[in-house]
Amino acid sequence: MERIVVLAGGIGGARFLRGLKAAVPDADVTVVGNTGDDIHLFGLKVCPDLDTVMYTLGGGINEEQGWGRADESFTVKEELAAYGVGPEWFGLGDRDFATHIVRTQMMSAGYPLSAVTEALCARWQPGVRLLPMTDDRVETHVLIDTAELDESPGNGAGGGSGHGPGGGPGGDRRKAVHFQEYWVRLRASVEAHAVVPVGAESAKPAPGVLDAIADADVILFPPSNPVVSVGTILAVPGIREAIADAGVPVVGLSPIVGDAPVHGMADKVLSAIGVESTAAAVAQHYGSGLLDGWLVDTVDAGSAQAVEDAGIRCRAVPLMMNGTEATAQMAREALALAEEVGA
Amino acid sequence: MERIVVLAGGIGGARFLRGLKAAVPDADVTVVGNTGDDIHLFGLKVCPDLDTVMYTLGGGINEEQGWGRADESFTVKEELAAYGVGPEWFGLGDRDFATHIVRTQMMSAGYPLSAVTEALCARWQPGVRLLPMTDDRVETHVLIDTAELDESPGNGAGGGSGHGPGGGPGGDRRKAVHFQEYWVRLRASVEAHAVVPVGAESAKPAPGVLDAIADADVILFPPSNPVVSVGTILAVPGIREAIADAGVPVVGLSPIVGDAPVHGMADKVLSAIGVESTAAAVAQHYGSGLLDGWLVDTVDAGSAQAVEDAGIRCRAVPLMMNGTEATAQMAREALALAEEVGA
Repeated sequence: MERIVVLAGGIGGARFLRGLKAAVPDADVTVVGNTGDDIHLFGLKVCPDLDTVMYTLGGGINEEQGWGRADESFTVKEELAAYGVGPEWFGLGDRDFATHIVRTQMMSAGYPLSAVTEALCARWQPGVRLLPMTDDRVETHVLIDTAELDESPGNGAGGGSGHGPGGGPGGDRRKAVHFQEYWVRLRASVEAHAVVPVGAESAKPAPGVLDAIADADVILFPPSNPVVSVGTILAVPGIREAIADAGVPVVGLSPIVGDAPVHGMADKVLSAIGVESTAAAVAQHYGSGLLDGWLVDTVDAGSAQAVEDAGIRCRAVPLMMNGTEATAQMAREALALAEEVGA
Repeated sequence: MERIVVLAGGIGGARFLRGLKAAVPDADVTVVGNTGDDIHLFGLKVCPDLDTVMYTLGGGINEEQGWGRADESFTVKEELAAYGVGPEWFGLGDRDFATHIVRTQMMSAGYPLSAVTEALCARWQPGVRLLPMTDDRVETHVLIDTAELDESPGNGAGGGSGHGPGGGPGGDRRKAVHFQEYWVRLRASVEAHAVVPVGAESAKPAPGVLDAIADADVILFPPSNPVVSVGTILAVPGIREAIADAGVPVVGLSPIVGDAPVHGMADKVLSAIGVESTAAAVAQHYGSGLLDGWLVDTVDAGSAQAVEDAGIRCRAVPLMMNGTEATAQMAREALALAEEVGA
């Protein structure tokens, strides 16, 4: 039985995993989930990416929006608003709240996130082993320029306009916000000047993560955000090294198709780390020290040579996750490329 | 403006307070609420009596059951059950959950219960100043005989039947359960051998409690449970003494009408402290050192003399809280008796 390790963020990772399970139902799949976008809301520990994977594979996901629970209601949220307790920009539903209540209760009782995740999965039976990247607290923060908040969102001009306190060239108007605030509240409408996985440098991989990587037959990077999803997982010391040292094929799928993210706003955070929003640039960012193979969409076939020139085997195949069968075919292509580079 | 202090439990206290507000809408009412039946459920701090007062006076109560929110749904509870997380015997609704989430978040941030209660009341505007009896943790526990749980509930025979571990005469089958477990899960179906307000002896009255008592013109004991509601409040060192020293009329209303509690199961816990379930016995239990006046129901008019003989002025008036007007009339009778004993 093939042992596959997948580094997953939220929606893109979860949908890819559903395709992977359909493609190779008997494979032994371990998912290393991003926890950098975890957030405490209303005193509760919320793990958006882990939950998106769990709900998607467990049949509880809201299919249209890609996150949150199906058949959801918002009574608790309305009541919290009636108490004047925010934030109101994060849409937790009643069913979702129960997950966070159970998680928080277990963590308050002393269980690490990995044990809590396993307990939650006992209900959802996702058909994969879902591990948080770490049991330690890591929070992805985004450095923004508050002056831009006053201007029309998204114009990117930023700083230097002279108003606001201080008046230095943007330096003292910089503010770090939680990734969720940047992503959900601000909808990535201002420039991300830096993306910092706070706490990552001292985090340890969760129990099982390094073993799963060492024992893997193949390691996959789904079309998740290369900065705030896969990048954050790789920022946990030991994980990048374990992947590089595993001696097995490492194949990724581009989240960028035709110079734009398939889902989400990956381009906003790619610019923060100085990476172009192209399929080839993302592969080059990961680099041949990490990646053996890279799938780009057929519309980006022209960039395959640039990826190959960087020492990464590249194939152009359809990468739009339109339904489970199309996604399963992407997974098959990734596994075929893994076999090819591993031969 | 008359300053009234009321020591209140849950349903009985809350309904009486609604009548009191109707009777003297301009009075300055401070409610000292019982917190001995507070409980942590699902990691959240639940204060049943404070919430019952707050919801009842704030217009959010489920009128039929007397506790919990009107127009309630139970999605969170169903989801918790789907996770296998209990207890299932405590019926928290979605709207109610929001209250406990806000409370727990504030307490985790370091706010005392009194400050949290004030914040919650900013929404509900109960028209009274609602104070918890203490900011310290007090939990009413009930000592039961586990052997009785195996027999038909409520037969009260208990112990000595020889089965079960140990075999001593009941002694090692005694178990302390949280009051809510005794009241809600077991429905007081086994004998209460003792009622212990754990933590009360080292608790301090919450800020404002002693001042309100010292400044009161009249102090009322509504028809709340004399053991686990009013009794628990009086168990906080300093409160009983402050009431006795206030030098103002202290008038109570019997929660027992015709030898049975009007609401709830007060008889079950009265027997644990060796007090008969009669209107007169409860007055004698409080005693003339605390009580100046006592209202019994007209059906108990025959017991008024026994109360008077104990040094407590007694009147027999209708004590069934059938609607706000009947309850307002009870409040008027209590205030009239206070005026009489204070003259």
